[in-house]
Amino acid sequence: MPLDLPAPHLLFLGDITNPLDAKTAIGLRDWRPEQCVGQWRLPGCTVDLGLPDMTPAAAVAAGAKSVLIGVAPLGGALAPSWISPLVDALSSGLSIVSGLHQNLEELPALSQAARAAQQQLINVRVAPDNIPLASGQRRTGKRLLTVGTDCCVGKKYTALALAKAMTEQGFPATFRATGQTGIMIAGGGIPMDAVVSDFIAGAAECLSPNAAEAHWDIIEGQGSLFHPAYAAVTLGLLHGSQPDALLLCHEAHRSAIDEYEEFEIPDLKTCISRYEQAASLTNPSARVVGISLNTAALTADEANGLCAEVSAETELPCLDPLRQELSPWLALLN
Amino acid sequence: MPLDLPAPHLLFLGDITNPLDAKTAIGLRDWRPEQCVGQWRLPGCTVDLGLPDMTPAAAVAAGAKSVLIGVAPLGGALAPSWISPLVDALSSGLSIVSGLHQNLEELPALSQAARAAQQQLINVRVAPDNIPLASGQRRTGKRLLTVGTDCCVGKKYTALALAKAMTEQGFPATFRATGQTGIMIAGGGIPMDAVVSDFIAGAAECLSPNAAEAHWDIIEGQGSLFHPAYAAVTLGLLHGSQPDALLLCHEAHRSAIDEYEEFEIPDLKTCISRYEQAASLTNPSARVVGISLNTAALTADEANGLCAEVSAETELPCLDPLRQELSPWLALLN
Repeated sequence: MPLDLPAPHLLFLGDITNPLDAKTAIGLRDWRPEQCVGQWRLPGCTVDLGLPDMTPAAAVAAGAKSVLIGVAPLGGALAPSWISPLVDALSSGLSIVSGLHQNLEELPALSQAARAAQQQLINVRVAPDNIPLASGQRRTGKRLLTVGTDCCVGKKYTALALAKAMTEQGFPATFRATGQTGIMIAGGGIPMDAVVSDFIAGAAECLSPNAAEAHWDIIEGQGSLFHPAYAAVTLGLLHGSQPDALLLCHEAHRSAIDEYEEFEIPDLKTCISRYEQAASLTNPSARVVGISLNTAALTADEANGLCAEVSAETELPCLDPLRQELSPWLALLN
Repeated sequence: MPLDLPAPHLLFLGDITNPLDAKTAIGLRDWRPEQCVGQWRLPGCTVDLGLPDMTPAAAVAAGAKSVLIGVAPLGGALAPSWISPLVDALSSGLSIVSGLHQNLEELPALSQAARAAQQQLINVRVAPDNIPLASGQRRTGKRLLTVGTDCCVGKKYTALALAKAMTEQGFPATFRATGQTGIMIAGGGIPMDAVVSDFIAGAAECLSPNAAEAHWDIIEGQGSLFHPAYAAVTLGLLHGSQPDALLLCHEAHRSAIDEYEEFEIPDLKTCISRYEQAASLTNPSARVVGISLNTAALTADEANGLCAEVSAETELPCLDPLRQELSPWLALLN
């Protein structure tokens, strides 16, 4: 499953104006800064990653090997106005890495230019062939899965932060990516949302294979059991991962599913028991061991207060992994 | 979604020797006998549907328009030795209808013969394009979903029997197919196990659209919440169907998941509460209204006794829909 992505990258932002559309580019900048030589913004783009602005030619001179499509436009397809600049990038000697649903080869202008310039078009959001059905058999090693009260609450960042902290403190740990941004950051993984539904638990089994007994796979969660569109993906990933430990991720003060506002998020204690109940099918000892609270919208004092409140309510260590030390979680994973 | 399958059919059994491999052919014979002119068995086949044996040429003379692949071989691909007979069938003037995972056009011998004979190759197990994400929005009309303690316990037959009984008694009801055999029987539907996982609840929403308030969609269930490989498909179908009523299907005396024997089936009252809990996300008033017991392995007396026992245990009408009158269920769906 390791991908061989040509790096370092020039992060392409197109002409977007909403920072939320730059989730992929921001993820790469935050977690693989050494692989990002600069940002490439077309006229009209108002999003700024704080990286040097570069043309493809300048990026090549700075050592870049690929343009990484850092934006996730609505509908998952490239804007027509981006094609011609991307053709120029190929001609300048850069490959293109994409996590869009659309396969780049299906765009004749890109496939011709890639052939002519002998550059690669790499689609990260492609499920591997020959995924087996889940076996339900337990595997050696330990696994932690981040799960959420909703989508976009911090499951990927929580898993990345935890894997990083564990590695830094000498725990044997591997981040396992399940979405396109995570896969680009990790250089491998399986895009769960592209797997045919019969095989989703099987794909999750493949993603975290047998390992040494003390080793932890830290698996990026997807969706939420409480989401009317995505709960199936969440459940299949949960069953195939067979996690020993779960971290429940929540955004501070979010009370309903984003864009599905009539669907209320249950209280955290109910979420914990529902996740443990669902996980118990393939690992009866699965337990939620902590709460990851996304406090980006709060002051530091508010964040500390709310984490303490949630810790008391759930009797579990509650942290914002982007603001606080992770030692209370690490102590539980010994 | 209605398919236009060329009918009547000649049911192809290949050279199989295990009746369990003939699930599709048996389903067509049982539920669409008027569309089955005969069976076509290659040398070595020991399975007998009780239909006249015919060659393709004889079937054409009897009015057949297609060969329907009635077997589901392990791995989901045609045996190499079946290709040449199927080429002959195309040349004789029959189209081919298949529910295998393998697309028939990918076999050059078949695609060439179909083109030469101007016959169709119809793959039923193809998910439609452009399935939207689930919206979670409620739809008009009523819906019943058959759910199971395991796979292969009678979810399809229960839904077919109920829809038939309702139609015969003047209830407005439509069978909604979710698997390849059901789709061939109904002439339409969506093969849930071929849908990409992000879209499974959305596909289920499409399958049972807005309808008249008194109309019932009777939806064929898939998998089981208690199955380590298939629970995700089950949950997505459940969430998108938003059923008002559930029928829990169980095979008499089965205590563990077939081929996953270390996974015990919970007691029926636990199964009921778990299905109602999961269904409540998109329809808080969803209720299990009855138990469908597959008693094929029992005598009539044993079956009656066990149904009475299960009715007492669950306080719900328990029937074997292939043996008993369905009026206790119909009374609940008024």
